[in-house]
Amino acid sequence: MQQFVRVFQEETVIPALVSKGGLLDLRSVIADITPETIASGVLNEIKSATLSPLAGDVRYLAPIDGVRQIPATGFNYKKHIEEMKVPTPTEPEVFLKSTLSLTGPFDPISKGPNTGVKLDWETELAIVVGREAQDIKADDAADYIFGYVCLNDISDRATQIDAEHQQHLVRAKSRPTYCPIGPYLVTGIDPMNLDVWTKVNGHYEQQGNTSDMLFPVYEMLAYFSRHMRLVPGDLLATGTPPGVGMGKNRFLADGDILECGITNLGNQRHKILP
Amino acid sequence: MQQFVRVFQEETVIPALVSKGGLLDLRSVIADITPETIASGVLNEIKSATLSPLAGDVRYLAPIDGVRQIPATGFNYKKHIEEMKVPTPTEPEVFLKSTLSLTGPFDPISKGPNTGVKLDWETELAIVVGREAQDIKADDAADYIFGYVCLNDISDRATQIDAEHQQHLVRAKSRPTYCPIGPYLVTGIDPMNLDVWTKVNGHYEQQGNTSDMLFPVYEMLAYFSRHMRLVPGDLLATGTPPGVGMGKNRFLADGDILECGITNLGNQRHKILP
Repeated sequence: MQQFVRVFQEETVIPALVSKGGLLDLRSVIADITPETIASGVLNEIKSATLSPLAGDVRYLAPIDGVRQIPATGFNYKKHIEEMKVPTPTEPEVFLKSTLSLTGPFDPISKGPNTGVKLDWETELAIVVGREAQDIKADDAADYIFGYVCLNDISDRATQIDAEHQQHLVRAKSRPTYCPIGPYLVTGIDPMNLDVWTKVNGHYEQQGNTSDMLFPVYEMLAYFSRHMRLVPGDLLATGTPPGVGMGKNRFLADGDILECGITNLGNQRHKILP
Repeated sequence: MQQFVRVFQEETVIPALVSKGGLLDLRSVIADITPETIASGVLNEIKSATLSPLAGDVRYLAPIDGVRQIPATGFNYKKHIEEMKVPTPTEPEVFLKSTLSLTGPFDPISKGPNTGVKLDWETELAIVVGREAQDIKADDAADYIFGYVCLNDISDRATQIDAEHQQHLVRAKSRPTYCPIGPYLVTGIDPMNLDVWTKVNGHYEQQGNTSDMLFPVYEMLAYFSRHMRLVPGDLLATGTPPGVGMGKNRFLADGDILECGITNLGNQRHKILP
């Protein structure tokens, strides 16, 4: 397992590797973590012994810059499907979040000025695509995956569900700050047995495990690759476990503290702003 | 009115301006037409008298490279809403087409290997965003628009409508080649009185006019800007007039010739491939 981060220090973006003793500076190897550096393969050959430590205070950023697409799915954890009282899907739902919604793992999340926003959390495992993928098979999917990040698919339920009970996923989930990712971009892990959790103001709201997925990670990537071309750096959000606010009719208020995390992928913390 | 194009000649991409006497080479001004060159404002100050003619055969490409988002709407022409027998929307539908679906105005369109594809046309006026736009008003929208292109929102109806009659717009409209644009990127026109047409194998299938829009162009841009941040070069597809194949249960077959166009924006021609 390797855990990559991007941090901000002295007005500079620095790619780094997490080690037991702290961060190791990756600038001797790459200028930044982007779709291009992922596609180059250089991050797969990092030798931590050759890297220098990165000292001093840092601010953690989204662990990849220049993402081209955020394909995402809904209703993929069996217990979330029960909670939302929707029929079990026979095929994955497919939508795209705006990449302009991306933000860092400790940045504030702004509800925005739309009226009656019902802001909700959806902590999700996201695949980071490593190679161009089109019409691939689930058996080959592992070869197309670079790694994984924790992604919170922040959603305005007031915008998502209309008066006729129709779902409008893209418009409900695409405002700026509605897609925090990080802090770690992690390679070399098994995606199918990871704990996924969310806390609001210190209380657990979501506790699930990726083993509960209806469509497992490799099958999901193969399915998406039949409906769009995937390219390095794309973030495929694989759905959320039970415990979203909509199921409890409880939403995020100004000043709330939203925390979330996934095994090995690190923990996020966000203040909710108007 | 100015009509910009990107063409391919002798292994080189060349930005050019359409003039009465033919094409004028823009390489003395810009290297290419991209979100960055649109944002720079340099294309708003082109003086055609200072440009050299571009001689010889060219192949027309999509008139902008590096597009970051394709926000799109459905059901925005009153006569198309009647044809599809859907309720008149109270708000615009919002979805995103994958940018990896973009292709040139004379390139072939590939149905792809999914089973039972019902490939359909949707010729649309697309706004080319000129400035970063978030939470703007319809009255100010013109200031945020660089120009317009003809966009065909190619759709696989078999993928779009499921057995429960639910719509899956993103997954039906995002495969490679499902989004031809061009040939012209046009500035300085009134968007609300343009003829929009489609022909299959020489016969008219769609004939509409943008004056039939339920949500006019400026209102549509303002609405989208409340649900996602828009950036220069984004293509906002504003919906299609009546005459789509789905309304007639008639779809594109291998070898068919699909043509389409919009007043002042030029005409496209595509061969349908398996």
